[in-house]
Amino acid sequence: MEYNISDKLKNVHGSAIREIFDLLKRGNIISFAGGMPASVTLPEKQINAILQNIISKYGVIECLQYESTQGKALLLEQIKTFLLEYKSISAELQNMIVLAGGQQGIEFMCKAFLNKGDVVLVENPTYLSVLQIIQTYEGKAVGVHSGSEGLDIADLERKIKEHKPKFLYVVPTFSNPTGGTYSLENRQKIAEITAQHGVMILEDDPYSQIRFEGETVPPLKSFDKAGNVVYVASFSKIIAPSLRIAVAVADPAVIGRFVIAKQSTDVCAPSISQLVVAEFLKNNLTEHLKNIIPIYKEKRDQMVKCIEEYFPKSFIYDVPHGGMFVWGHFEGERDLLATFKEVVDLGVAYLPGSHFFPDGSGKNTMRLNFSNATLEQIEKGVKILGEYFNR
Amino acid sequence: MEYNISDKLKNVHGSAIREIFDLLKRGNIISFAGGMPASVTLPEKQINAILQNIISKYGVIECLQYESTQGKALLLEQIKTFLLEYKSISAELQNMIVLAGGQQGIEFMCKAFLNKGDVVLVENPTYLSVLQIIQTYEGKAVGVHSGSEGLDIADLERKIKEHKPKFLYVVPTFSNPTGGTYSLENRQKIAEITAQHGVMILEDDPYSQIRFEGETVPPLKSFDKAGNVVYVASFSKIIAPSLRIAVAVADPAVIGRFVIAKQSTDVCAPSISQLVVAEFLKNNLTEHLKNIIPIYKEKRDQMVKCIEEYFPKSFIYDVPHGGMFVWGHFEGERDLLATFKEVVDLGVAYLPGSHFFPDGSGKNTMRLNFSNATLEQIEKGVKILGEYFNR
Repeated sequence: MEYNISDKLKNVHGSAIREIFDLLKRGNIISFAGGMPASVTLPEKQINAILQNIISKYGVIECLQYESTQGKALLLEQIKTFLLEYKSISAELQNMIVLAGGQQGIEFMCKAFLNKGDVVLVENPTYLSVLQIIQTYEGKAVGVHSGSEGLDIADLERKIKEHKPKFLYVVPTFSNPTGGTYSLENRQKIAEITAQHGVMILEDDPYSQIRFEGETVPPLKSFDKAGNVVYVASFSKIIAPSLRIAVAVADPAVIGRFVIAKQSTDVCAPSISQLVVAEFLKNNLTEHLKNIIPIYKEKRDQMVKCIEEYFPKSFIYDVPHGGMFVWGHFEGERDLLATFKEVVDLGVAYLPGSHFFPDGSGKNTMRLNFSNATLEQIEKGVKILGEYFNR
Repeated sequence: MEYNISDKLKNVHGSAIREIFDLLKRGNIISFAGGMPASVTLPEKQINAILQNIISKYGVIECLQYESTQGKALLLEQIKTFLLEYKSISAELQNMIVLAGGQQGIEFMCKAFLNKGDVVLVENPTYLSVLQIIQTYEGKAVGVHSGSEGLDIADLERKIKEHKPKFLYVVPTFSNPTGGTYSLENRQKIAEITAQHGVMILEDDPYSQIRFEGETVPPLKSFDKAGNVVYVASFSKIIAPSLRIAVAVADPAVIGRFVIAKQSTDVCAPSISQLVVAEFLKNNLTEHLKNIIPIYKEKRDQMVKCIEEYFPKSFIYDVPHGGMFVWGHFEGERDLLATFKEVVDLGVAYLPGSHFFPDGSGKNTMRLNFSNATLEQIEKGVKILGEYFNR
């Protein structure tokens, strides 16, 4: 049978990251391609302890029956405390909805606001999955220039006027892929200009608790006076990805639309995951972060040291102050998309940076993930890459 | 701020069932409105036992790390056996994807096949959430007449020719809301006619294991020679809804599109839920079904006995051979949408049937769920309803 695929999906190809995952599963490859937390940082003992008593503590209905679409009140209460303590965000229950991972926030934002042909402004480069999701909604991603302080405000304003975008998607802290963090002043200006022009913001914040140095900068959401910021925090990187729990924080009118979107797909978040996150936020998170940040810092340091040692000097990059990625580019012309398979044959994988550019540019850029490999693998892998690029 | 909601969501109101759930949570109301399994049938002890050893048995990566979008191979292997044993369906791993509940299958089907304005044929009446999901894709649901043997084949063919639908959505066994089951011959004809016209089918099968009497009828999928049937089985009603695990079975080309749809929203199914379902299918399901079917049969019998005793004779209904619902209508004019709130004030809730009709007709119909109330509540609630309708 000939399948007559919708316009939304017929030209969308699988996420580059997921395809690379599948490729890398087959062989003995050192991968700097993904964005997975290190398995050693996953709180096996704490979650095992929570699971031992979860059904006896909460009972059959809380653990096994259908749940509210918005999420369990007892989880939302813990998230409220977390948001205030870690993010300087005041949220009431009516401002929140539990999501099946941060990505579902992007999906719901597109469903709630995009019509065919509508523009979403994104950082250039931006998280690659947001480009795919926008495509499945027949929208158009337009890149905004950015620098070491954050978005280029003049370019942002110009593109708001030119494209009348439905929303701006940003990862302001330890951005994926660049690892950069917007300054306080830049955040204030972004909040101000978008509010002034009635443009929504989707602020995606999966990494900000994984900070190695420098001062915490409050999220855009904390400057939101107009109600135009939808903020998403994920527990995938700081607790465990397999739980599939994140939260969106927004005006109740927006949460109402997200509730309808969630009713139409997965109905409610899995109860055991919700209870595990609630217990973990209450009893384990503070200590857990103290344990895992030094592990990631050591990996970041190792990767930076090895890049300095093995990579050609034509590789230009910034040292990230947190998160999971080193982002860089080679001076001059170099097609890192074309060299990817050769490098995989040598036993190492990076992520070609052009996947992150809405216009497919950035062929000389790459993203190197340091969170999932061991220190030895980082040394070995960066050395192989360095020798390859020095040829 | 004025929120400029997309055309997809701006006219969609929350699911009637979910709003009624919220209403009913407030008071001490006997509810025949929902579709929840009885809490006494939820396998608390078995799942508690599985959770005790899950992390030590499967390890940190299987339990807590990111998972394949298609689902865990070890779960898919168990589902393969389940499909063969219970459903007469032969499926290989490439034919399956794990979903976050059966509803996600409807969502992905719409995403993969619907463009704005496209028609989906549905039973008249049909599962109310499918109407909402089609609306969020700016599609149009058109009802096909049906009778006690299944769909009216002449009407199906007429509407295929007239509307060129993208797919037909059906719940052929213990249909929601009608409780009816399509005959073997009817299924064969539906498979034949849709294949002949190149129309896809979405076969939704959440209830067929909950059978009280009569012979098992194989699913439409078992007659699928053209590859036009997408089959969805859910574990919400036969294990536990809170796990949010279901499976779609289809041609690998369709599964590929569903994988892209899932990458764009929740990325992968929660691992602990996947492992619980895998263990339960392997060790517990057969015995569990033997335990819970008599509980549901007793409730069905009680509801039928009480309807006979208390309801006016103008209430016409069929006794369902399985599932969770009694569906009926009153002869003559009666607006059960209008009387709903009066009845809730008396302490009982039914589900007004007009929510299930794509054209909003069926004001004299209602769905009565018997799975979640106790025998005493069924007696008391049906008596109150009967006295009200006899006035």
